[in-house]
Amino acid sequence: MKVAIMGFGVVGSGVAELFAKNHNKIVSSSTQPELELKYILDIKDFPGSPFADMMIKDFNIILNDPEVGIVVETMGGLKPAYDYVSACLKAKKSVVTSNKELVAEKGYELLSLAKENGVNFLFEASVGGGIPIIRPISQCLAANEIDEIAGILNGTTNFILTKMFKEGMSFGDALKLAQENGYAESNPAADIEGTDACRKICILASLAFGKHVYPEEVYTEGITKITTEDVDYAKNWGGVVKLIARAGRLENGKIFALVSPAFVKSSSQLASVDDVFNAILVRGDATGDVVFYGRGAGKMPTASAVVADVIDCAKHAVSKKVFGWEDGIPNYVVDYTSLPVSLYVRVSAVGNTSEIKKELESKIPGINYLVRSASPANEFAFVTPEMPENEIREKLTEINGISIINTIRITDY
Amino acid sequence: MKVAIMGFGVVGSGVAELFAKNHNKIVSSSTQPELELKYILDIKDFPGSPFADMMIKDFNIILNDPEVGIVVETMGGLKPAYDYVSACLKAKKSVVTSNKELVAEKGYELLSLAKENGVNFLFEASVGGGIPIIRPISQCLAANEIDEIAGILNGTTNFILTKMFKEGMSFGDALKLAQENGYAESNPAADIEGTDACRKICILASLAFGKHVYPEEVYTEGITKITTEDVDYAKNWGGVVKLIARAGRLENGKIFALVSPAFVKSSSQLASVDDVFNAILVRGDATGDVVFYGRGAGKMPTASAVVADVIDCAKHAVSKKVFGWEDGIPNYVVDYTSLPVSLYVRVSAVGNTSEIKKELESKIPGINYLVRSASPANEFAFVTPEMPENEIREKLTEINGISIINTIRITDY
Repeated sequence: MKVAIMGFGVVGSGVAELFAKNHNKIVSSSTQPELELKYILDIKDFPGSPFADMMIKDFNIILNDPEVGIVVETMGGLKPAYDYVSACLKAKKSVVTSNKELVAEKGYELLSLAKENGVNFLFEASVGGGIPIIRPISQCLAANEIDEIAGILNGTTNFILTKMFKEGMSFGDALKLAQENGYAESNPAADIEGTDACRKICILASLAFGKHVYPEEVYTEGITKITTEDVDYAKNWGGVVKLIARAGRLENGKIFALVSPAFVKSSSQLASVDDVFNAILVRGDATGDVVFYGRGAGKMPTASAVVADVIDCAKHAVSKKVFGWEDGIPNYVVDYTSLPVSLYVRVSAVGNTSEIKKELESKIPGINYLVRSASPANEFAFVTPEMPENEIREKLTEINGISIINTIRITDY
Repeated sequence: MKVAIMGFGVVGSGVAELFAKNHNKIVSSSTQPELELKYILDIKDFPGSPFADMMIKDFNIILNDPEVGIVVETMGGLKPAYDYVSACLKAKKSVVTSNKELVAEKGYELLSLAKENGVNFLFEASVGGGIPIIRPISQCLAANEIDEIAGILNGTTNFILTKMFKEGMSFGDALKLAQENGYAESNPAADIEGTDACRKICILASLAFGKHVYPEEVYTEGITKITTEDVDYAKNWGGVVKLIARAGRLENGKIFALVSPAFVKSSSQLASVDDVFNAILVRGDATGDVVFYGRGAGKMPTASAVVADVIDCAKHAVSKKVFGWEDGIPNYVVDYTSLPVSLYVRVSAVGNTSEIKKELESKIPGINYLVRSASPANEFAFVTPEMPENEIREKLTEINGISIINTIRITDY
């Protein structure tokens, strides 16, 4: 069986290199003695590449070659990836992808197409890079009802937040450092606005809860509003600020899903996930909390997840893997603001602070104040008890003389 | 397809309960509409149990019932588990076990027997309880060469060491507390002497490196010699003391494997694994370090791993899973003392301490002293630079006037 790669970027070239480097191990794991790379599709030229003789520019060569049984899609984006992948599946070729946007937007459709055509559509590399997570959720935890998933799913934002926490850097300086280190794109929006993490939690939630969750259904808040002041208050509270993507099953058969900065207790396994590392916590009814940790991105970690899927496709050439979910339904993802949460709130007060606090305490009984050194006299911060988020926000608007600087949700993972 | 359970202890009863509780999910995951529990074998009576009508005492009922395609072995120990499991495999029934002793001692043999008879022998629950680890190593990391594995594989000893570290408890008091909480047996030897962790690292090393590693080949040191003094020095060094089971590939095609207490840096993902939790770090050539964390024991976590294997057996009823390793060979596991290590050493000095230190520093250049409060004048502790362990120990014997109280290896995970 022959393999084709579409897209010779960072991940695609890593796949080709790994195929060459660990070839014996890959062939023996796959149980397919003829598992070989045949084509690499890319619009660019790569003269001098050790893979130059496999390079092609015409997708139809892959599509029409009956020897090609497995196609790796590492182009990214929806166009033309979606058309190419659809065509491959219809031509009864299994597809392995690292493209989170494709899976988050078109996963149900492509899984259905794979099923109709008796082939596999696998995407371990689309979430958590080299961390095995798709397969453990679908297989190892098959005996569990999964109640909740929470993850640090974006390495760039985690790097920035780590620098802010450990070295007191500003958001801007930490972002610049991330860009200098190659961890952030020159246009970092997809990372810092939470879009990347949103796509990944959509994939995990679809898999864990059985219905497709689309990115536009998931409330997504990035880290651009986080300042060193918030980080200092988090320390005083006894934790760290992380960008947490989470989703959970509700009793009415619906789910919640959101991406937002969150306070995480120092004792949590997620709190010690630093720099570009990722971690995913899966809360099962039988297993309790299980955490998967590792490099969430990077050429070789991601490539190794792709190649593992290729091996799996080769092993399941005859009997296809059982894998998939139903389409989404309207109102399946509930408005997260209706759910109880404890909220960190930082305000600037206009007027008599002690009277403002008195009013606040009567409107929201049970708040706990936080402190930081060198805070201006008119600033204070507190943590609310747990209650529906929209109720907290409603009450806050009723308090005279405060202007909210920032709010951050508090997690119990 | 019908399922039989052999051994209705903690794990076995958890399997039965999970089968009842999540039955719909299990059946749909397994793609076998008729996947049902039929028999539970145990020598004891369980009057009033909801499973009383399935209880049997004669193993031959299971063996001779052609409806039973999957047998769960949760008896523990080698006798009669080994005979029963062998008989089931020969009768072309797949077997799922949580029995680490059975897999560590007889894994190669039973895997071969399964292969000969075209059935599965799966044991996800034998290591790490509810943490998916066997399957991720064999499948997700199939594209990697695994270089090293290190784990906190025993919850009892980790609970004891956590209490010693966080609450300054003595070993004896912490053990007593573990027994009171049901985390340690009244005879705790298998846990505190490292035997349990040794069996588990044998299984992981066999799987990761391809040849059976037998428990008697693995140097195993428990935690009984660890005192609060050592714990204090570990804090001063910047880390914690953990019982680490590890194995790694060497350049000559051989491996090392040992179980021993170790200093672990605070920044390590393994350092924050507290109480009865387990974690396994897998170092792959492409993925880098991946860590799996969760409850390493307990009724429902372990049962969920067993049931996931049962589901996998049911799915692979026709095409069996590719899975296994070769038999061990002589001298495959090298003498760990020939390998370079950095060692923590605590000594009691007889004579002029500053002269003894001078001699020590000339014999072992580059040592770093550690301090703790309230140490007696004749006690001191230090960390050596990295060099072959037997060389360090040799040099230590040459130094006059010191008596070694304890040594602990230092890890870089």
